[in-house]
Amino acid sequence: MKGIPIRTTRSYKMARVFPTDVNSYQTLFGGKLMAYIDDIASIAAAKLSRANTITASTDSVDFLYPIYMTDSVTLESFVTWTGRSSMETFVKVVREDLKTGERQIAATAFLTFVALDDHGRKAEVTPVYPETEEERKLHESAPVRAEMRKQRREAS
Amino acid sequence: MKGIPIRTTRSYKMARVFPTDVNSYQTLFGGKLMAYIDDIASIAAAKLSRANTITASTDSVDFLYPIYMTDSVTLESFVTWTGRSSMETFVKVVREDLKTGERQIAATAFLTFVALDDHGRKAEVTPVYPETEEERKLHESAPVRAEMRKQRREAS
Amino acid sequence: MKGIPIRTTRSYKMARVFPTDVNSYQTLFGGKLMAYIDDIASIAAAKLSRANTITASTDSVDFLYPIYMTDSVTLESFVTWTGRSSMETFVKVVREDLKTGERQIAATAFLTFVALDDHGRKAEVTPVYPETEEERKLHESAPVRAEMRKQRREAS
Amino acid sequence: MKGIPIRTTRSYKMARVFPTDVNSYQTLFGGKLMAYIDDIASIAAAKLSRANTITASTDSVDFLYPIYMTDSVTLESFVTWTGRSSMETFVKVVREDLKTGERQIAATAFLTFVALDDHGRKAEVTPVYPETEEERKLHESAPVRAEMRKQRREAS
Amino acid sequence: MKGIPIRTTRSYKMARVFPTDVNSYQTLFGGKLMAYIDDIASIAAAKLSRANTITASTDSVDFLYPIYMTDSVTLESFVTWTGRSSMETFVKVVREDLKTGERQIAATAFLTFVALDDHGRKAEVTPVYPETEEERKLHESAPVRAEMRKQRREAS
Amino acid sequence: MKGIPIRTTRSYKMARVFPTDVNSYQTLFGGKLMAYIDDIASIAAAKLSRANTITASTDSVDFLYPIYMTDSVTLESFVTWTGRSSMETFVKVVREDLKTGERQIAATAFLTFVALDDHGRKAEVTPVYPETEEERKLHESAPVRAEMRKQRREAS
Ligand SMILES: CC(C)(COP(=O)(O)OP(=O)(O)OC[C@H]1O[C@@H](n2cnc3c(N)ncnc32)[C@H](O)[C@@H]1OP(=O)(O)O)[C@@H](O)C(=O)NCCC(=O)NCCS
Ligand SMILES: CC(C)(COP(=O)(O)OP(=O)(O)OC[C@H]1O[C@@H](n2cnc3c(N)ncnc32)[C@H](O)[C@@H]1OP(=O)(O)O)[C@@H](O)C(=O)NCCC(=O)NCCS
Ligand SMILES: CC(C)(COP(=O)(O)OP(=O)(O)OC[C@H]1O[C@@H](n2cnc3c(N)ncnc32)[C@H](O)[C@@H]1OP(=O)(O)O)[C@@H](O)C(=O)NCCC(=O)NCCS
Ligand SMILES: CC(C)(COP(=O)(O)OP(=O)(O)OC[C@H]1O[C@@H](n2cnc3c(N)ncnc32)[C@H](O)[C@@H]1OP(=O)(O)O)[C@@H](O)C(=O)NCCC(=O)NCCS
Repeated sequence: MKGIPIRTTRSYKMARVFPTDVNSYQTLFGGKLMAYIDDIASIAAAKLSRANTITASTDSVDFLYPIYMTDSVTLESFVTWTGRSSMETFVKVVREDLKTGERQIAATAFLTFVALDDHGRKAEVTPVYPETEEERKLHESAPVRAEMRKQRREAS
Repeated sequence: MKGIPIRTTRSYKMARVFPTDVNSYQTLFGGKLMAYIDDIASIAAAKLSRANTITASTDSVDFLYPIYMTDSVTLESFVTWTGRSSMETFVKVVREDLKTGERQIAATAFLTFVALDDHGRKAEVTPVYPETEEERKLHESAPVRAEMRKQRREAS
Repeated sequence: MKGIPIRTTRSYKMARVFPTDVNSYQTLFGGKLMAYIDDIASIAAAKLSRANTITASTDSVDFLYPIYMTDSVTLESFVTWTGRSSMETFVKVVREDLKTGERQIAATAFLTFVALDDHGRKAEVTPVYPETEEERKLHESAPVRAEMRKQRREAS
Repeated sequence: MKGIPIRTTRSYKMARVFPTDVNSYQTLFGGKLMAYIDDIASIAAAKLSRANTITASTDSVDFLYPIYMTDSVTLESFVTWTGRSSMETFVKVVREDLKTGERQIAATAFLTFVALDDHGRKAEVTPVYPETEEERKLHESAPVRAEMRKQRREAS
Repeated sequence: MKGIPIRTTRSYKMARVFPTDVNSYQTLFGGKLMAYIDDIASIAAAKLSRANTITASTDSVDFLYPIYMTDSVTLESFVTWTGRSSMETFVKVVREDLKTGERQIAATAFLTFVALDDHGRKAEVTPVYPETEEERKLHESAPVRAEMRKQRREAS
Repeated sequence: MKGIPIRTTRSYKMARVFPTDVNSYQTLFGGKLMAYIDDIASIAAAKLSRANTITASTDSVDFLYPIYMTDSVTLESFVTWTGRSSMETFVKVVREDLKTGERQIAATAFLTFVALDDHGRKAEVTPVYPETEEERKLHESAPVRAEMRKQRREAS
């Protein structure tokens, strides 16, 4: 397999939910989780490109389960696929009730980053190859999502 | 036309770019802009539903133009379309170079919110109808995006 | 009328009240609202001067009505009057109960900014002229407030 | 002298200037200093009233000298005068160049707070009396400023 | 071995260094890293106790290598040892130059947390046992550090 | 006595406890207090060295009494002892119930800073001498703590 194994881009983050980050239902704000998602996805992209990266698009974030004030959240991210200078990253967010240990997938997201060299010009990135079942599934469905991004950009 | 004119949901926000919000290129972080986008879109959704709202999904954010430290940003948001309890909102971000007055569209985004009553149960929302050309275009293309969200959710 | 219409300096911002921003009564902190006020007033001043601006003084902020956690706030600002390098800006803060749509003026403020060129020297600013009743009233009463600022400065 | 000596309300705060708090000139933002001023003045008011306090007005803030990134700031605050439920507080901000020890008055401010009991009703506050020259000067000029606040409120 | 393997308490966090978090040398602030350290260590403690936890002491933080603005940091934490209601946690901070992939240990820390039940009373915690060499070394040296904490507390 | 009196390094800070800074028990977060402690201790160190300072280690923080949402905190810091380029600072944190005026020592801490010149090289610092009983006690016990720091560093 040519390129770099997806595994080497894996990045993760655990955080507590702070009282400052919750709404009147005592559940985490979408905007706050978005900031965590952007942070961890950009680390995965930087681990591949070893270059400066900027967010080109947030392609989807599905908020599937509310995150409560007594929870911790774990974010996992990796690069699923590369174009020339662009990289698609996947982020999975798991909530854990710290008192019971119970866990759920709270959100999933796709973001696209572009690598830039030190003069701010687009830089080519090395392709990645999948090893696990989850990586393979997301790697194979990536060209379809890339096509949808292109159509969306033309429409906008 | 039955329902409420989209116009009544229009919400807007101007902000300066602070040195704390920029990366090493002196351009605004994607994560920071995401927080502004979520904030203004949720106000538009609340103006329609007059209820509690939670972010169900960030459907797309396209970062089209970098935002510099000497810029101000203007965000405009409105509800484009409603389901039963869900509302699609559109956000347009314009940067303005405060020294020259030059302006560009820096980003566009779609987000979906769900209205909840005081017991946390889904609440029905009043439909909206478009009046301007831009509103009409986005209102008419909404069912296609709703269908895409549904497919995405089934796949995840 | 010589100069620039006040209208071209109008700036506005809507924001939700976050749980992190409220005191033990669940009403917004004065200090937090002050930061919003300074931000939006400085945009109005920059739109006129197209230069760097620094806050020379906060001349008055009257907190007329408490702002609750379920409210949104809308700030509107414009330049009311100019000296040589200084600009007086007015800010009006309206709260809206997002559940009922009820609105009140929550605060009014005057701030003075000074325009600086790229070497940090005071820069002259173009005069402004009023068009609406509210603009005219504030434009005409400005010299009195300017005189009071001068006296205050001499006393301090 | 009846009442409480002003001295017992004295409150102070030192802080470094963080890179996140400065504008493109590397000097502190007015909005950031405002938040510090509101915080320390409200402690002085609480030390007198031993009650809940809310900011009724920021009566004036004069920014006299820029504060640089290598500076520390020291804020001193005390209650100068009381009405029935209202308290006027004075804040003096001194900058110190940490490398040379050089100091200047960077800002002075007056704010008015109102004391509230646990039901949110206005609560009476004990009068204060001055002991030092600075306290006496500010205590004696307070009724004039109170009169100006009243006129300002009627005009608004 | 009775008790719970240390492994089940392992917690980790990656974060980018933001421009807002650095001092005038462009290296991360001690205070900012402390906040990350406290956050991740408290998650490790909560994973063991499945109870509320409060920081009883920060026993030592050694800053061994500066962290630069182009770095990411990875924090790893686990519980090394338990008393009756107290838990000692260890945190290792590794910096990675995102451009070259070069890594160094940037800091190590020990913190003690106490478990509380829902009435705020101290709760007993299950002992932990080590499996790896690093875990064993820290588990065995823990009673000496516990003794030092006791002496320090008596002196204060 | 040669050197500089410890008194000239004394630094202090009062702050309210904000709702954003408390955990689910309504008591201040360890991590938040750590940030205040690092800030005030670094000012004390800068007042002695008149140079750039970086945190070399947080040697101990003992959290002795919870800090509640209606409290203010007062931090006092001074340099207790110097090595060649290093300075040990002591921080005492007192909580005050703003409603009753009741006070307790809430935490004590020791931190070590290193002075750096403008090229980032270690800079020598002037010795300090004690004048009060508290200063004398901490100055005399400092060499023992310095020895413990050395041992700790060798072990790590
Ligand atoms: C992203 C950006 C560099 C693309 O520039 P461009 O001139 O359109 O670039 P190109 O058309 O050559 O595209 C370059 C790559 O980006 C991808 N791309 C461009 N726009 C995109 C979008 N909206 N979504 C996803 N990918 C996008 C292209 O597919 C292409 O990928 P490839 O190199 O793998 O084939 C540019 O739009 C930009 O600077 N945007 C602002 C980014 C930013 O500041 N983000 C933070 C905002 S707060
Ligand atoms: C959003 C949420 C309430 C949907 O709950 P659900 O039981 O799946 O609800 P339903 O299937 O009945 O769908 C309710 C509505 O939400 C829409 N919806 C559900 N999931 C969605 C998604 N991922 N994206 C967009 N819309 C979605 C449905 O289309 C439906 O719309 P309609 O009422 O207009 O027909 C639920 O997933 C949730 O609570 N998520 C967490 C939200 C959150 O905490 N956000 C902040 C995260 S930090
Ligand atoms: C504001 C500042 C530039 C004024 O400098 P100065 O040498 O006193 O300037 P001048 O006396 O020539 O006055 C310049 C203008 O500012 C106005 N001005 C000065 N001090 C002022 C005050 N306290 N309030 C309102 N306006 C003031 C003057 O009226 C004059 O206006 P004009 O040009 O329209 O006639 C100076 O005091 C300063 O740099 N202050 C710090 C500003 C700052 O850093 N703000 C953020 C603080 S955190
Ligand atoms: C301040 C407030 C309680 C005054 O209420 P009110 O019904 O006008 O009260 P009154 O006319 O009885 O005045 C009460 C006292 O406040 C003083 N006061 C009222 N408005 C004031 C103003 N704008 N500036 C200064 N003092 C003011 C009065 O002089 C009076 O003082 P006294 O008791 O010493 O004689 C009310 O306007 C309010 O709740 N404002 C919002 C405060 C707030 O939420 N601040 C943070 C905003 S983000």
